[in-house]
Amino acid sequence: MSEPFTELLQRAVALARSSVDAGGGPFGALITTADGSIVAEGQNVVTAACDPTAHAEVTAIRRACAVQESHRLDGLILVSSCEPCPMCLAAAWWARLDSVHFASTRFEAANAGFDDELLWQAVASGNTGPQLPLRHLPVPTAGDEFHHWLAQADRMPY
Amino acid sequence: MSEPFTELLQRAVALARSSVDAGGGPFGALITTADGSIVAEGQNVVTAACDPTAHAEVTAIRRACAVQESHRLDGLILVSSCEPCPMCLAAAWWARLDSVHFASTRFEAANAGFDDELLWQAVASGNTGPQLPLRHLPVPTAGDEFHHWLAQADRMPY
Repeated sequence: MSEPFTELLQRAVALARSSVDAGGGPFGALITTADGSIVAEGQNVVTAACDPTAHAEVTAIRRACAVQESHRLDGLILVSSCEPCPMCLAAAWWARLDSVHFASTRFEAANAGFDDELLWQAVASGNTGPQLPLRHLPVPTAGDEFHHWLAQADRMPY
Repeated sequence: MSEPFTELLQRAVALARSSVDAGGGPFGALITTADGSIVAEGQNVVTAACDPTAHAEVTAIRRACAVQESHRLDGLILVSSCEPCPMCLAAAWWARLDSVHFASTRFEAANAGFDDELLWQAVASGNTGPQLPLRHLPVPTAGDEFHHWLAQADRMPY
């Protein structure tokens, strides 16, 4: 392949299209090795699975982790039909993926009714405003959990 | 209760503490009604579940959605031992939760080795930089999925 990701991105777009036929949202994603071997695929099944986190990217990440039997996907790549939302971008970060490739942009998604712009602004500012008020209440026991964590000699950082 | 969230936050901190005893990360969360009835609880099971998205908040959200048999948690509240990371904050947004209450801050988490600051900066800028390169490659079929979505009369927006 002259552009190795063209076929994989077209596969992700095809997954997005077939997701619509299955009653899901128009998003598809896959996790691949650098040489184009697909480890897992995902579609947006938010409504069918009753899971607001079941975006295509998160679904693909969870499946790839199950295949790899690891919470880390070092060396692997996320290929998505569309630019990831903040949740999916952060999930890719936590999965320690190598890179993210996408075909459609957040602006094209907005034209189809998926307007994540408010969410981007909220997460960027760390303040979700009146739509999702955030409140810090430092109760007396707060911090106990971290002291307990740091006291474990065999703790597994990640 | 004079402060109805104090007990719930202390419950979240206790979940975080017991998560450590179970070999998980020091984070706990729960979903509650406005009058303090707990719908679901969650702990950080990233390593045990081989799922980098299984933070306490995401786990609690997914369980509450299973209980409610809905991808929306309108009217419910997220109570977390710690300030949510960008992934969890966005997940709470997508779940349409009413508000988020937390006990420990991201800075206290950083002191315990959970430093999300780079992730916050990356998500805030929409650019995950060299740690997670993002690449837009507009393949010929990109956009097909959105046209197909908009052509469905019975599509379920969310």
